[in-house]
Order: sequence, then structure tokens, then C-alpha cells
Amino acid sequence: MFNQKYAEIKPWSVRKMIADGEITWQTSGMCSGYAQANLVILPQKDAYDFMLFAQRNPKSCPILEVSDTGSRSLRFIAENADIACDIPKYRVYEKGSLTGEYTDIEKLWRDDFVSFLIGCSFSFESMMLEAGIPVRHIEEGKNVPMYITDIDCVPAGKFSGKMVVSMRPIPYDQVVKAVTVTEQVPSVHGTPVHIGEPSLIGIKDINKPDFGDMVTINEGEIPVFWACGVTPQSVVMNSKPDIAITHAPGHMFITDIKNTDLKG
Amino acid sequence: MFNQKYAEIKPWSVRKMIADGEITWQTSGMCSGYAQANLVILPQKDAYDFMLFAQRNPKSCPILEVSDTGSRSLRFIAENADIACDIPKYRVYEKGSLTGEYTDIEKLWRDDFVSFLIGCSFSFESMMLEAGIPVRHIEEGKNVPMYITDIDCVPAGKFSGKMVVSMRPIPYDQVVKAVTVTEQVPSVHGTPVHIGEPSLIGIKDINKPDFGDMVTINEGEIPVFWACGVTPQSVVMNSKPDIAITHAPGHMFITDIKNTDLKG
Repeated sequence: MFNQKYAEIKPWSVRKMIADGEITWQTSGMCSGYAQANLVILPQKDAYDFMLFAQRNPKSCPILEVSDTGSRSLRFIAENADIACDIPKYRVYEKGSLTGEYTDIEKLWRDDFVSFLIGCSFSFESMMLEAGIPVRHIEEGKNVPMYITDIDCVPAGKFSGKMVVSMRPIPYDQVVKAVTVTEQVPSVHGTPVHIGEPSLIGIKDINKPDFGDMVTINEGEIPVFWACGVTPQSVVMNSKPDIAITHAPGHMFITDIKNTDLKG
Repeated sequence: MFNQKYAEIKPWSVRKMIADGEITWQTSGMCSGYAQANLVILPQKDAYDFMLFAQRNPKSCPILEVSDTGSRSLRFIAENADIACDIPKYRVYEKGSLTGEYTDIEKLWRDDFVSFLIGCSFSFESMMLEAGIPVRHIEEGKNVPMYITDIDCVPAGKFSGKMVVSMRPIPYDQVVKAVTVTEQVPSVHGTPVHIGEPSLIGIKDINKPDFGDMVTINEGEIPVFWACGVTPQSVVMNSKPDIAITHAPGHMFITDIKNTDLKG
């Protein structure tokens, strides 16, 4: 499995390797059992609207922590972290356009930056696996398939847009378990937003995901859709703030929080 | 029971009676089955810090809805509501001092006001009663006893302070049920913050609540403490914003949301 070498290393050690430039690739599979997080950095002037957006769209945008304005440290989910160095790859967007990728953002840091750390489905996938539910894209060594739906997020201030969902094919006799397992972790997207009929949420062709890779849906399986952490990034990009910095897809922030501590 | 006459009337009708000045007293017992909410109104310049405070203190400050800036309407928890008229009694605080009580705040309304509607324990009490768990202050026709603890809320920007808790005596053999019932409703304070020994959370004399009335603790019962909606008000007052408007204690905003819809 990808990154197996780093599975048993503690988050603080891996974060240091990332900050030191020893790890520059995707973090999937690192620090087994620990939650990984999406990152959105915005200037303070846009932070209120974004926090309101998150409050109104908790499934798409489950906030794990919001930094103090200007601070590169976190208070709760990771000790001695430096949000400007501890992610393998960052993306900078200016007025909604990608203007660069960086392995650290120390030189770009501003005193008015606020960091939003947002729950990631890596956490609930580990719980699904423990419960004996297959996670197809992991089996197939792919990225999860993601789709832009026609479900409007609830707008807030300058932020609005469609919900992005991820899809996992689930055997019919494990659908209920997939709901009850993910119900336990509202801070990593919680229960599915739809089960079964892609067209009902505006997905025209299940075989053509908007992001990620298509995976095999076997006979006897049904596609199940969860709100996806790409939603807040996509919505932020749509609204074209002067500047926004995010992690590059798959290059997550690794927290000190165990997945099991995200329950309830 | 208090307000029994209004128990079976729908929230929108009762809100109209309140707006018309026909009801000017406490709302406990009105609109059976519907959630009631605490209110904190702050100017936009203080709203970000308060929302961050709520994000960091979800048990004390479970937000049901945040209005759009300047809007007297709500989008989600009540239709055709006017937040400036639909509460029987408001309190205005200037720099942390109570400067007036009003039956409506139309004349005080400002375009930069943001309204925070916060979950209220009335909701979980109705679930406890349904589950056969006694709620002593209701039995005794009193206000719930509340205590200022030595538990620090997690500070956010200008807001900081101690957690306020409410106490309900629970028979030993129903303590587990009291936990599991309230676990289902994180949006109205969720699980208890402490069970059993008041001194461990800084309460010197259980017989002398800081707010509300003392209730009887029978032989075979243990005091159980929940985070209380008075916490955000108390914290806001401590931080002395230029202006803050709240409901007067017990004079709540009645929503269109059923208590059962607050579950998970």
C-alpha cells in the first residue's frame, strides 16, 4: 500500500519530514489511525463569510479548527505545527485562478491570514474498513471519484456554489452499515447525501467523474455519495477572493487527532 | 403547567401574538415539541470573534442559525419571523452593562447587526421526559439551577470566560440513559460536562446556584451538569462589546423546528 513506510510513524515526526522537504508527495496512508485535514487559508476580510458558509453547510465543510488570525500555529489538532510548512504541496489562487504550487508558503505568509482545517474522508474510510465495508478506490489504488452535483450549497455572504460529492460503491447488504458507521463522524462529512440514483443529484454519467478516477461498481453494489471536502475549495474558487491558499489535492495536513476521537 | 394554553398553538401563531404585544412573558411550555432558542445580537465587527468562539465551544454555544448581516429575517429555523419583534422581552447591554429591557427592538435595529440563535435546553428536557427521566425543576415549577464553573471556555478573539452549567438531579439508574438521550442532540448542548462531584468543576455550594432556583436532590440521585446557554451571554457580557442585545432569561425565540429534528 502507498506510503506504507510512513504508516506507523507519528504525525509530529512526519510533519517534520514534510517541513524539512523530505516528503513532497501525497499523504494518503501516512500515520495510520490519525485524521488528515483539508486546508483553506483566507484573509481575515473573507474569513467571516467562509465561517458562516461552513456553519450553514456542515456536511460539506466540517471545520476541525480555525487558527487565530495571523498565527501559523494551531491550538487543538496539532502541537508545534507550522501551517506554512507542514503540508507537502500548497496551491495559491488569486481571484480564483491557480497562480502557483509551493512546498512551503513562508514567504507568502501574511498577518491577516486565517487557516481553516476541514475534515477529510480519509478518516471515515478507515472506519469503514474496520467495519468490513469495502473501499473500492483504495482496493484499486486510485483516487476517489468525485462529482459536481446540482445540489446548491446554502450561500453565505460572498460564498455560494454546488456541492461536490465523492462516490463509493457499496454492496446492498452493507448500505445500512455504511450509513450508521459514517453517522458517527459528523466532523468528517457524516452520513451520505444520496444513495443509488446519480441523475437525481445532477450526475449525468457516473463513469465520468469531475475529479479523481472512476472505480469498478460490481454487480450487487450501489453507488453511495458523500459530501466532499473539495466542495469548500471549489466554492472558494468560484467566489474569486483576492487570495486563497489550499493544500494540493491529496497533500493533506496530518493532525495529532485519532480518527476514533472524531466520533460524536 | 405554565403556558399550557399555548402548548398546542403553532410557533408562527405564537410569534405573531408576541410581535403584537399580546404575550409579554416567559415562553416555557409554549408550542409543545418545537425548539426554542437563545438570542445574541452583535454588530458585524464582533460577529467573527463570536462565531469563532462558538466553533471552539460547541457544547456551550451550539449555533442553530446565524442571520445575514442586517437582516431581521431568518432563513432556516423560522419562516416570516422578525427577530426584532418576535421575542417577548429583550435586554440591551452597552459595554457589558444592562441599559434597558424592551418588548421590541425595531427602533434600535442597525444595518450591521448579526443575530445568533443558539440551542436551548428546553429541547433536550422534552426528550428526557419522553424517555421517562425526571426533570426536577419542571416538577417543582422552578427555573433550572445554574452555576458558574471554573472550567475555562476556549477563548476566541475578544471573547473568553468560564463555562456556565445547568444541573438536573438524576436517579443513579437513569444516568446512563440521560447521557445517551442528550448525546443525540449536540445542537442543544449534547452530553453532560460532569456527573457527580460539584467541587471538581469549581462549584462550592450546590445549594446556592448562581442563577435560577435550587431544586430538591432526592436520596438515590446524583447531580448531573450540562453546558448552559447562559455561557455565551455571560461571555459576551464579560468582553464588553459596544452593544449586545439578547433575549431576557426565559423569554426565548420559538422556532419552527421540531425538537426531534435536532437529532444528529
